[in-house]
Amino acid sequence: MGEKHIFGFGGGAAEGAGESKETLGGKGQGLAQMSALGIPVPPGFTITTEVCRYYHAHDRTYPDDLAAQFDDQLATVEALQGRGFGDPANPLLLSVRSGAKFSMPGMMDTVLNLGLNREIVEAQIAAGVDERFIRDCFRRLVTMYGDVVLGVPHEGFESILSAARAEAGVQTDSELPAHALQVVADGYLALIADHGKTFPEAPRDQLWGAVSAVFDSWNVRRAREYRRLHGIPEDLGTAVNVQTMVFGNRGPGCATGVAFTRDPGTGEPRIYGEYLVNAQGEDVVAGIRTPLAIAPVAGAPGLVADFPEAYRDLERFCARLEDERRDMQDVEFTIEDGKLYMLQTRDGKRTGSAAARIAVDMVREGRIDSATALSRFGGLALTQLLAPVFEEVEKRAAVAGGRLLAKGLAAGPGAASGRIALTAERATAMAAAGPVLLVRDETSPEDIVGMHAAAGILTSRGGMTSHAAVVARGMGKPCIVGADALAVDSEAGVVRVAGRVFSEGDRLSIDGTTGEVIAGELAAQPSALLQSLLAGSASDDPLVVAARQLLEWADAARRMRVRANADTPEDARVARALGAEGIGLCRTEHMFFAEDRLPWVREVILATGVDGRRGALAHLLPVQQGDFEGILEAMDGLPVTVRLLDPPLHEFLPREEQAVAQLAAQMGLERQAVLDAVESLAEFNPMLGHRGCRLGLTHPDIYDMQVEAIARAGCALAARGLDPRPEIMVPLVGTEAEMSRLRERVAAVVERVLAAAGQKLEIPIGTMIEVPRAALVADRIAAHADFFSFGTNDLTQMTYGYSRDDVAGFLPQFVEQGILPGDPFAELDVEGVGQLVALACERGRATKPLLKIGICGEHGGEPSSIRFFEGCRLDYVSCSPYRVPIARLAAGRSTLGY
Amino acid sequence: MGEKHIFGFGGGAAEGAGESKETLGGKGQGLAQMSALGIPVPPGFTITTEVCRYYHAHDRTYPDDLAAQFDDQLATVEALQGRGFGDPANPLLLSVRSGAKFSMPGMMDTVLNLGLNREIVEAQIAAGVDERFIRDCFRRLVTMYGDVVLGVPHEGFESILSAARAEAGVQTDSELPAHALQVVADGYLALIADHGKTFPEAPRDQLWGAVSAVFDSWNVRRAREYRRLHGIPEDLGTAVNVQTMVFGNRGPGCATGVAFTRDPGTGEPRIYGEYLVNAQGEDVVAGIRTPLAIAPVAGAPGLVADFPEAYRDLERFCARLEDERRDMQDVEFTIEDGKLYMLQTRDGKRTGSAAARIAVDMVREGRIDSATALSRFGGLALTQLLAPVFEEVEKRAAVAGGRLLAKGLAAGPGAASGRIALTAERATAMAAAGPVLLVRDETSPEDIVGMHAAAGILTSRGGMTSHAAVVARGMGKPCIVGADALAVDSEAGVVRVAGRVFSEGDRLSIDGTTGEVIAGELAAQPSALLQSLLAGSASDDPLVVAARQLLEWADAARRMRVRANADTPEDARVARALGAEGIGLCRTEHMFFAEDRLPWVREVILATGVDGRRGALAHLLPVQQGDFEGILEAMDGLPVTVRLLDPPLHEFLPREEQAVAQLAAQMGLERQAVLDAVESLAEFNPMLGHRGCRLGLTHPDIYDMQVEAIARAGCALAARGLDPRPEIMVPLVGTEAEMSRLRERVAAVVERVLAAAGQKLEIPIGTMIEVPRAALVADRIAAHADFFSFGTNDLTQMTYGYSRDDVAGFLPQFVEQGILPGDPFAELDVEGVGQLVALACERGRATKPLLKIGICGEHGGEPSSIRFFEGCRLDYVSCSPYRVPIARLAAGRSTLGY
Repeated sequence: MGEKHIFGFGGGAAEGAGESKETLGGKGQGLAQMSALGIPVPPGFTITTEVCRYYHAHDRTYPDDLAAQFDDQLATVEALQGRGFGDPANPLLLSVRSGAKFSMPGMMDTVLNLGLNREIVEAQIAAGVDERFIRDCFRRLVTMYGDVVLGVPHEGFESILSAARAEAGVQTDSELPAHALQVVADGYLALIADHGKTFPEAPRDQLWGAVSAVFDSWNVRRAREYRRLHGIPEDLGTAVNVQTMVFGNRGPGCATGVAFTRDPGTGEPRIYGEYLVNAQGEDVVAGIRTPLAIAPVAGAPGLVADFPEAYRDLERFCARLEDERRDMQDVEFTIEDGKLYMLQTRDGKRTGSAAARIAVDMVREGRIDSATALSRFGGLALTQLLAPVFEEVEKRAAVAGGRLLAKGLAAGPGAASGRIALTAERATAMAAAGPVLLVRDETSPEDIVGMHAAAGILTSRGGMTSHAAVVARGMGKPCIVGADALAVDSEAGVVRVAGRVFSEGDRLSIDGTTGEVIAGELAAQPSALLQSLLAGSASDDPLVVAARQLLEWADAARRMRVRANADTPEDARVARALGAEGIGLCRTEHMFFAEDRLPWVREVILATGVDGRRGALAHLLPVQQGDFEGILEAMDGLPVTVRLLDPPLHEFLPREEQAVAQLAAQMGLERQAVLDAVESLAEFNPMLGHRGCRLGLTHPDIYDMQVEAIARAGCALAARGLDPRPEIMVPLVGTEAEMSRLRERVAAVVERVLAAAGQKLEIPIGTMIEVPRAALVADRIAAHADFFSFGTNDLTQMTYGYSRDDVAGFLPQFVEQGILPGDPFAELDVEGVGQLVALACERGRATKPLLKIGICGEHGGEPSSIRFFEGCRLDYVSCSPYRVPIARLAAGRSTLGY
Repeated sequence: MGEKHIFGFGGGAAEGAGESKETLGGKGQGLAQMSALGIPVPPGFTITTEVCRYYHAHDRTYPDDLAAQFDDQLATVEALQGRGFGDPANPLLLSVRSGAKFSMPGMMDTVLNLGLNREIVEAQIAAGVDERFIRDCFRRLVTMYGDVVLGVPHEGFESILSAARAEAGVQTDSELPAHALQVVADGYLALIADHGKTFPEAPRDQLWGAVSAVFDSWNVRRAREYRRLHGIPEDLGTAVNVQTMVFGNRGPGCATGVAFTRDPGTGEPRIYGEYLVNAQGEDVVAGIRTPLAIAPVAGAPGLVADFPEAYRDLERFCARLEDERRDMQDVEFTIEDGKLYMLQTRDGKRTGSAAARIAVDMVREGRIDSATALSRFGGLALTQLLAPVFEEVEKRAAVAGGRLLAKGLAAGPGAASGRIALTAERATAMAAAGPVLLVRDETSPEDIVGMHAAAGILTSRGGMTSHAAVVARGMGKPCIVGADALAVDSEAGVVRVAGRVFSEGDRLSIDGTTGEVIAGELAAQPSALLQSLLAGSASDDPLVVAARQLLEWADAARRMRVRANADTPEDARVARALGAEGIGLCRTEHMFFAEDRLPWVREVILATGVDGRRGALAHLLPVQQGDFEGILEAMDGLPVTVRLLDPPLHEFLPREEQAVAQLAAQMGLERQAVLDAVESLAEFNPMLGHRGCRLGLTHPDIYDMQVEAIARAGCALAARGLDPRPEIMVPLVGTEAEMSRLRERVAAVVERVLAAAGQKLEIPIGTMIEVPRAALVADRIAAHADFFSFGTNDLTQMTYGYSRDDVAGFLPQFVEQGILPGDPFAELDVEGVGQLVALACERGRATKPLLKIGICGEHGGEPSSIRFFEGCRLDYVSCSPYRVPIARLAAGRSTLGY
């Protein structure tokens, strides 16, 4: 006997109960699991992903023994249902659905009602089956088959349908009479023939055609695109689920719906979902009719009133599935003549708020432990919770002032404001110039790149489970769907709403937490979680409580410290409130740019000779000392890593001729002398120029002043009984000699100041690793450094040879075309830059096993990068103050392997 | 018995005959070798370098058993000479000289006549020894001891001596009467006392003081500086040679001299050297008196006439030493009362011409094999032979026109023309602005950095063995010494010569091959060797013959191919004549800048949309095809690697407003449109910008045109029966996807063109490895590349984070201060950049074992870098056409391990 290619389910049992998602796909595994638990699922069988891999590896052919196994499984289903596939007297109808390991919404295809043909339809009508129902089934089969399997554009089918509605003078498809549906089906068949294709009348041909179409759809461009965007391996393959049809559209005692076992927006522990009476499942997902809420709300009694028995079953099954699968579930169901069938269960997508609350609730309920809770609450979710919301007063005023244009479904929380774009292409193009809102009737997989580019998404149609809603939540974007007051005319480039017309480029604001669409721009304010963290006060908001609980668990789990990049006492205080355990990068150049210092800085630069500089530096010394005292005091008892001056000197000089003249006048210098200085300092590639430690070596007096200021600041605080912990960081080191010489010089100044003050501070001296060469010779540099701190921004620039300031010329195109998996300045390039990081760690520690190593580039606040840094066993990550909570969470998750 | 610290020599034997230079130093080993060969050397002993290392490792103290061994050795010498050290009646006089493994001219110190004091001087006079002689010996001892051992500045001693000459009314020291010398010695002793020091009267104290001073001198700054510049390890240490004095200044039957066993300027096989009658050796080396030539020349009979017996011995000893040491020797000798003593032998320094001729002659003489010959003829020597000489007609006119200012000794061949600098500091400072001639009375080790910076060196004093001559030859710099018509007044900043006054910054020209100093600038022309190579014709110039022989041996030995970087048929022809076996880098951007193409290039850039570009590209296609046909024809049968467009597009647009307006008018475009284009293309860091393959991916039509032109050119030549071998190289690749996509696209265009032409050319498609990331992921890139070519210029820029265009702001200072060992753009940074080169080779070959790998950065023509590339087993190096012979030589030497 050969390999088992197909696993049957139904009738309270499942051959595949012990099989994995890898083999059965997510949908198939859920069906097998439900069937094994005794939950009613329509019987059927799953063709494994292995067959999909075989199919694509063998020129779209099947294993020899597949057909025989297929026949056996079909016979079993026929026996269970007491019907025959293709039997005109008693036909078995089947659905075919894809189901890969990871849910790929809207990307894989579905065909329903397979097993019907004109002959069977007529035979059924003759046998007394409701004509309208059976004709509707058939026209649905033909449209799906024509579109999905035969590749006939679906617009053709839609225009036949609208013509029929117009002809019949009705608004909705469900009002079409039986005869009209027959005309529609005939029109569909003619349309297919016009495209040179044939709809197979033989049920078996239909079935195999649909199965092959599912396998083929694994390889279409938009599926590949989705996998690329989500990092799903190409060789997973999809399974195919063949399943008996049950009908939610067989009359008023029928319904179809989708439900989450908890509220996917807030995490509230109650069934949340939508249903349509007398409809097929695709009608809900497609967002064509706006469905009813399962929970009773004003004006609608809810599912419990419409279908009390089915609702009780649904509650029972949801709890049973949560017990079994230990996570919130997203289920599809159909009620056929009052009886509930479950068609699918999978772990439900959710907002950041919901993720936090569900995870924490499930720990309290004993369903999961805190590590599992952390595995379900990622940086994206926390980012949403920290995302700004609109300033309440301003928003109220806007609403009172008549700027509220519409209300839709709050599908993705968070506030977004920007120019509107009516196509994905325009959104992508316009995003470079500022935040964009993508406004569409509905979105489709083709829009994914544009959705990525947009700050927020607004659709006029669809429900909470529509494509736009699901994808936006996954991306963490503010999103409103089903805002049906909007009339989007993408051809004319305008949106009409509330009697107003907005053109592409006009500004709108959306509150994805409330569903409000507001004209013009609105200012945002910190979210409740952020306010609570900043205030350090307790909250009774359950989402805030849950998120803070998760952060505590992450803190308890994590190995790496989290520091912040901060240049001012204010930033340092924010960072500390958000949990920073030190400053990993205090840039001193920002201090140099302050209005009261810049003249002195310029005097340092323009002075001829060391003596001229000395005076100006003497003016800067106490000012810098004050800067450092402020930051060290704000971070009392915690390390503060101060980076010595990094940018090239020309950055401090004006460039325009007029400004030069003005400067010369101010400083009492010849205009030409200043011009000469500006010219002599100008650089072709300042990023690779005379900066960092190169400046420190050629202009040692500037570094001397800074080091003296740091050491004096430390002494002054220590004298006040505080616990200052300054660390001095030398930027842009690329050779051992640079580090050894600067270390010697810095140490001498520190020693002198400490001796004069009679203080005994420990002031470590380290370096940034940001030049590729530094990583390559890290063993030598480590001999002279107390710590390393990766400057991954510069390291990325030099490793790729990308100037961050210029990369906009090609990077977006590279990402869009898949030449780059993403922006390497946002997410660390583990494959390339990561090699240098790992190498530098290894070599640095070879010289000094206990070398302290951190990272202070922007990747220090990005979760996937943090995971890599944990793999390198860094001592800390440092990021911008507002990303500190995200880094804490990611560091904790990384320690646990997430 | 403990370790042997001291090895005796003399009396026809040597304890250290089997010891190495590492132990005895160069001088000690030569003395031991000569003594063992029966060549008369004054007896003495050598204290090993091991003692020096011990001394510095043990706080300047000696091994316990050293004193006893020292006493034994001293007793042996006393016995051999029949004299007692410190015996007033019959005193043994000793010299103490340093001698490290590598000759470090002028850096280590010497003290002569040790063993004299006032008491012994008076006793010797009383016993009838020539008073003038013995007083001269003593005053020499005191001045050397005072300067070298006690650290009293030598200017003080000199002014006492000049005062004595003035007092006595004489010009030279040798005319000073005995009494005057006594006064001088007393003055010296008083001067030493004034400095708070004491001259030790006890001979043993003198001896130990001198020994310690030699060891101490190993660690003085200028010695460390010299070692750093010459890559001599710090822990080698120096030996000390203690040796019986013989006197070349004991009367007219005495002389002292230095000789080369062959002419160090031309390699001619005859003894070449200088001597001074009645003088001590230091007088020759110091260049204070201009010595006589050993060979008879017009007006001077030569050594053979003055000292016939000594001369015959010298000839015999020279030949014997060449037999034994298998290289040309640089010897020091003293004739005391007609008898020849050899004081030193070492392998002689020589010009490039001499190196070639001597090496080839010695192979013919059977003394060495061709591999050894190659080991003695390096890139520096060949560089000299290829260096330009002054255009003969222009030079003759200049001389006829009265511009010949002086003639000096031709100490370093080659022509140099530039502004004069009178101090090393000024030379260093001025060199940034153009070629500089360093003009000094004489040079000293303190001037080394300035000599490096200078294009040529000119001194008014000294002979062929003076510091200036020796060091300049080592550096391969044109040099004239002993041009005594020059009066150099460095204080006033002027040089007076032939009644004219030249200020610092004025222009002079020197011909280091003839010794001529010429006013103003002179144009140079190719050297005889270069002319011969370019013409491909035989030569009867023995230097040219020898150099070409060495190149042939190198070609026979080398494993790597040598290609050239050439963008035009003219350059390609030169390269081929000089031995290039292909073009490793044909840059296409230079073609774009040509006047007849730039307008079309600009139209490509400024055209809106693909269609607008198409027309302009169609104009460029046949022009580019013509370019490639020319180069492929010039290199018929050899590979030509064409690099697709590399620079960012803005390089082809004007920057100044006026030029922009003009361009707009020319192209019939709005001025603002052109301005916008210029602005939108401008980059902050163009080196890291939108260039190379990034351009190729965003503007694929430009690459398509270039590839089509290359393929068409190949087809056109093939159709003519030629053998074109184009290769297509994609620049700036950093990721696998860049390479895979471009490879696919390039291959498609090539295939299309070949199919249309019905030709079957093989056109390999490869990439440059010039971005650090490319080296890190070379395994992946190799999957899509037929070859790698290292672009070490960019790789160096990005690995160090140095912009080559901006590096002048700190690089010279870094090199001067020893922060960098040299300019990494000239000599490959093996420690850092080399790691990436080695890694890329290893990983590329892991994917494709037979991957062809070359290098086309400027390091491809630099010998030490070529040695590294041979270590990486590269397939070829590619360099500028005129460096091809140097690369051939270096590649051959590298294969042999040199």
